[in-house]
Amino acid sequence: MSQAEAAAESELKKKLRIIIFGTDTPAGRRFDLALILCIIASVTLVLLDTVSSINARWGELIHVLEWIFTVIFTLEYGLRIYCSAHRWQYMRSFYGIVDLLSVLPSYLALFFPGANFTLIIRVLRLFRIFRVLKLLRYLSEGNLLLKAMMQSSRKVFLFFFSVSLIIMVLSAIMYMVEGPENGFSSIPKSIYWTIVTITTVGYGDITPKTELGQAIAALTMLIGYSIIAIPTGILTAEISQEIGRNRDLRRCSNCLKTGHDQDAEYCSKCGSELQKEL
Amino acid sequence: MSQAEAAAESELKKKLRIIIFGTDTPAGRRFDLALILCIIASVTLVLLDTVSSINARWGELIHVLEWIFTVIFTLEYGLRIYCSAHRWQYMRSFYGIVDLLSVLPSYLALFFPGANFTLIIRVLRLFRIFRVLKLLRYLSEGNLLLKAMMQSSRKVFLFFFSVSLIIMVLSAIMYMVEGPENGFSSIPKSIYWTIVTITTVGYGDITPKTELGQAIAALTMLIGYSIIAIPTGILTAEISQEIGRNRDLRRCSNCLKTGHDQDAEYCSKCGSELQKEL
Amino acid sequence: MSQAEAAAESELKKKLRIIIFGTDTPAGRRFDLALILCIIASVTLVLLDTVSSINARWGELIHVLEWIFTVIFTLEYGLRIYCSAHRWQYMRSFYGIVDLLSVLPSYLALFFPGANFTLIIRVLRLFRIFRVLKLLRYLSEGNLLLKAMMQSSRKVFLFFFSVSLIIMVLSAIMYMVEGPENGFSSIPKSIYWTIVTITTVGYGDITPKTELGQAIAALTMLIGYSIIAIPTGILTAEISQEIGRNRDLRRCSNCLKTGHDQDAEYCSKCGSELQKEL
Amino acid sequence: MSQAEAAAESELKKKLRIIIFGTDTPAGRRFDLALILCIIASVTLVLLDTVSSINARWGELIHVLEWIFTVIFTLEYGLRIYCSAHRWQYMRSFYGIVDLLSVLPSYLALFFPGANFTLIIRVLRLFRIFRVLKLLRYLSEGNLLLKAMMQSSRKVFLFFFSVSLIIMVLSAIMYMVEGPENGFSSIPKSIYWTIVTITTVGYGDITPKTELGQAIAALTMLIGYSIIAIPTGILTAEISQEIGRNRDLRRCSNCLKTGHDQDAEYCSKCGSELQKEL
Repeated sequence: MSQAEAAAESELKKKLRIIIFGTDTPAGRRFDLALILCIIASVTLVLLDTVSSINARWGELIHVLEWIFTVIFTLEYGLRIYCSAHRWQYMRSFYGIVDLLSVLPSYLALFFPGANFTLIIRVLRLFRIFRVLKLLRYLSEGNLLLKAMMQSSRKVFLFFFSVSLIIMVLSAIMYMVEGPENGFSSIPKSIYWTIVTITTVGYGDITPKTELGQAIAALTMLIGYSIIAIPTGILTAEISQEIGRNRDLRRCSNCLKTGHDQDAEYCSKCGSELQKEL
Repeated sequence: MSQAEAAAESELKKKLRIIIFGTDTPAGRRFDLALILCIIASVTLVLLDTVSSINARWGELIHVLEWIFTVIFTLEYGLRIYCSAHRWQYMRSFYGIVDLLSVLPSYLALFFPGANFTLIIRVLRLFRIFRVLKLLRYLSEGNLLLKAMMQSSRKVFLFFFSVSLIIMVLSAIMYMVEGPENGFSSIPKSIYWTIVTITTVGYGDITPKTELGQAIAALTMLIGYSIIAIPTGILTAEISQEIGRNRDLRRCSNCLKTGHDQDAEYCSKCGSELQKEL
Repeated sequence: MSQAEAAAESELKKKLRIIIFGTDTPAGRRFDLALILCIIASVTLVLLDTVSSINARWGELIHVLEWIFTVIFTLEYGLRIYCSAHRWQYMRSFYGIVDLLSVLPSYLALFFPGANFTLIIRVLRLFRIFRVLKLLRYLSEGNLLLKAMMQSSRKVFLFFFSVSLIIMVLSAIMYMVEGPENGFSSIPKSIYWTIVTITTVGYGDITPKTELGQAIAALTMLIGYSIIAIPTGILTAEISQEIGRNRDLRRCSNCLKTGHDQDAEYCSKCGSELQKEL
Repeated sequence: MSQAEAAAESELKKKLRIIIFGTDTPAGRRFDLALILCIIASVTLVLLDTVSSINARWGELIHVLEWIFTVIFTLEYGLRIYCSAHRWQYMRSFYGIVDLLSVLPSYLALFFPGANFTLIIRVLRLFRIFRVLKLLRYLSEGNLLLKAMMQSSRKVFLFFFSVSLIIMVLSAIMYMVEGPENGFSSIPKSIYWTIVTITTVGYGDITPKTELGQAIAALTMLIGYSIIAIPTGILTAEISQEIGRNRDLRRCSNCLKTGHDQDAEYCSKCGSELQKEL
C-alpha cells in the first residue's frame, strides 16, 4: 500500500508532508523552528510548575499554557499520522513514540492527577534539532564517536563486568567491617556506598567510621582513581584511530576507497597507487 | 598418575567431565547456563538477606533457599573433584578455591552464626561466564588490556610510589595545621583525609576549618586534579600502541611492513598483495 | 583620521605610547612590570577586604589603598586613550573594556556602597602578562590548544547536548522517585542534584533516601563515570593530531614528506637534506 | 681538595664509603636494605604515635624506639659526612638535606616539645629505594614520564594560569550571589569553595543555597568536568609521542642516533639509510 497510495493521496497531504516532515522549503524550516520553540517553552513550563513558589502564584496560568501546548502537539501528532506516507513506520519509529509520549501524560493526568511532570519527556523531541539545522557535518562527527564507542564496546563491557564484581566483593567486606551501626545497613546499601566511592562522587551520607573501614575505603578510592583511566584509555585510542582514518581525504582512483592510512602510498584494497594530496 | 588413571577412569566420569567442565556439547552448555543462573539467584538471596525489612518477612524462606543452593554447590564441587582428570590441579586453581569458598561459609555459619554474607564470594564464580559464552574475541580484547596494563605497570608503580610519599607529607602537614580539634585526630586519619581529597572523592566527613588548612587543602585538590592525568596518559598511550600493533599480524612479503588494516588486501606502502592470515 | 593624525601627534604622545603599549624598550618593560605588580596588589586587597577579621582591623587602610590603585588605573586608562593611535579600536577591544571595568566599580561604590568586590575583574588584566613576558612560544602552544579545542568543538557540543537531555530525563525521574520530602523539591533542584552527581562532585547536600532512588543515583554515577571518558578521548585525539602536525612545517623537497622532527636535518623517508625553516 | 685528599684518605674511609654509598657489594646492599627497614619502621612509629589510643598505652615505648632510630640515623649521617669524598657536595644535595632533616626534629623536640611528628619527613629517604633496587629500567621509565611532563609543562602552565583566573572570577560572583549568610564568608573562602567544586572534590561543607547560586555552581561543575580533559589530553599526547620514539630500537650506523620515528627509513640527523630491524 505504499506506491499506489502515495500516488493517490490528495494534494493537501503532500503539501502538509513537505511542511511537517521536510526541512528543505522555507515553510518547512519555519514550521520546525516554531516546533522547537514550542518544545522548549513547554519543557520550561513543566520545570517551573514543580517549583512550589512559582506554582503557588502562576499555577493556574501554567496549567492553561500546558493544555495549549498539549493541544498543539496533539494536533501536530494527528497531522503527522494523517499526512505520513508510511503511517505505521512513523508511529513505530523513535520519533513517533516520543511524539505520542509527549502528549499522553496530559490526558492521563485527567484521571491520575499530579503526574504531569512526566511531560518532561518532551525534551527528547529536541533531538529533531539535528534534522532541522541540517547538521550533516555534526552527524558525521556523531557517527565517528558512535563508531569509536562500538569499536570499544567489548573492552568497556569487560571493564564494567570486572568492576561490578570488584564492587560486590568490596561491598560485602565493608558491610562486614562497618556494619549497620555505621550506616552500612545492608549489602545493597553497601553497594550504593561503594559505587559512590569508586566513581569519586563521595556524597558523605554514608562514611566509614572504624579505622579498618577507613583503610579499606582509602583502598577503594585508589582503585577508583586508577581504573578511571581504563575506559578513558580505551576510548581515546579508538577515537584517535577513527580520526586519523577519517582525516585522509584521498580517494583511490581505481576502487574509490577512502579512509586510507595517512602514510599509505598504495590502496590497501586494490593495490593501485594513490595520488599525492594536492 | 595422569596418563594411566585417565585411561582407567570409568565411562561415567568421562561423561560427567564433558558436561561439567566442557562447553562444547549442548548438555555442557545447558549445565553451565543453569549454574550461572544458580549463582546469580544465590548471590541475590545473600544481598536481600541483609536488608532488615526483607529479612524480617522472608528470612525463613531465604535461609531455606540458601541451604538448597549450598547443597547444590556442594554436590557440584564434589562432582568436579570426582570427575576431574587432575584433581589437585583443579583444587588448587583459582576456580577450585573459589568453588570451595562458595560453600564453606554456610557450614561455618552453623558454628559461627551471622557470617553467611561472606557467601557473596560466590559472585567470583561468575567469571566462568567467559568460558561459557565462548567469548574468545572478548578474551583477546581482555588480553590486549592486560598487556597494556602490564606494559605500563612499571610507570604506574612509580607513579603510585611517588604519590604515596606526597600523601604522607601532606598528611603530616595537615595534621600539624588543623590538629585533633578539627577532626584530624591522628596522622593515619589525616592520610585517610588526604586520600579522600586527592582522589577527588571528597566525603566531607573531615574538612579543614582553618584558613591555612583550607589553602593547603586547595593545593592538595589541584595536585590531585593534575596527577589524575598521569595514569590516564600512560595507559592511553600503551593501549593506543597495543591497538595499533594488534591491528594485524600480517607482514608484507615485499617491504616487510606490518600493522596493516584488518580488511587490507594489499600493502599500503608498496602495493604488493598480502597473504591471507594462517 | 589615522595616517594624518598619526603624523600630527605630538612627540609626547609617541613616547608615552612606546612606554605604555610597547614592550620592546626597557622603559616599556618596566612600566608593564609595575602595572602587573599593581594589579596583583590591588586584587589581593580586594580579596582581603572581604575577610571580616581583616576588614575590621585594617578596613580603613585597605579602602585608602584601593582608592590609590583606582586613581592609578584611572590615570593609566586616560593615558592609554590619550596616546593611543586608534582610540576607538582600543576602547572597544577586550583589554580596553577590561581596563574600564577595572576602575568603574570604585566610582559606582560611591553611590551604591558595598559592591566594590566586583573590582576583582581587575584580575583579567593579568592576561597582559603574556604580552609582557614576550611568551611567543607560550602563545604558539596556546594556539595549538585552542586549535585542538576548535577542531573538537562540534563533537564536544554534540556530547554536551546529549548529556543535557540525559540530565533532564534523569532529573524528572529522581523528582518522581524521591520527591520534595527528600530534598528534591522541584525539577530545577533535581537538575542541580543530577549535575552534582554526574560530574562526580557529590556535595551530599541532597542525597537519595529511598532504595529505588539510590539505585538510580548509582546508575547516574556510573553514567557520569563512563561519559567522563568521552570529552577526554576527543580532546586527546585532537591534541595528538595537532602536536603531530605541528612538529615541523618543513616539507622535504624530494619526497614532499612533512611532519619532520624539529631537530631533523635530513628527511627520514628519503634521506635528502632538509632546508632550514625560513 | 678532591684528588689529593681522595688519595690520602684512610683505608677505613674507603671501606665505609663502599658500604654506605655503594650498592654493588653484598655488604652495601645489606646496609641499604637495613636502612630502608629502619626508615619504614621509624615512619610507622611516628604515625602510630599520633593515634591517641596507641599513644596512651605504648607512648613510652614508642618514644624510646624513636630515640633509638634518631641515634641510628644521626650516626649514619655522621658516617656519611665522615667518609664522603665530597663532603659539601653531599651535604648540599637533596639526600644530604633530607638526611639532616630526618634527625633534627628529635633534637628540636627537646626544646619545643610536641613537634616530633615532623619526623615524617623521613619518608622522603625512601626515594633511596630506587638506588638500592638498582631499578635502572624504572629510572628510564621515570625519565620518559619526566620528559613528557617537561614537554607539556608550558601547555599545563598556560592551562593552570587560565583556570586560576576563571576561579577568581567565579569566586567573586559566588561571593556576591550567596554571601556570608550561606557560608561564602569572604572571597578567599569562596575561592576555596570554587576549587573544591571545579576539581570535583565536593566536600559539601559549603554549598550554594540560593537558586541562582546553584545554577552558577552547576555551571562551575560542568566547566570543571570539561577542563579536566585538557591536561589529560596534553599529557597523553606527549607520553604517546615519547613512548613511540622510545620504542624504536634502531641505531644509526653512521652517527649512532637512536630514537628514530617508527616509519623512518633514513636517519633524520645525518641522512644515512637505517637498517631494517631484524
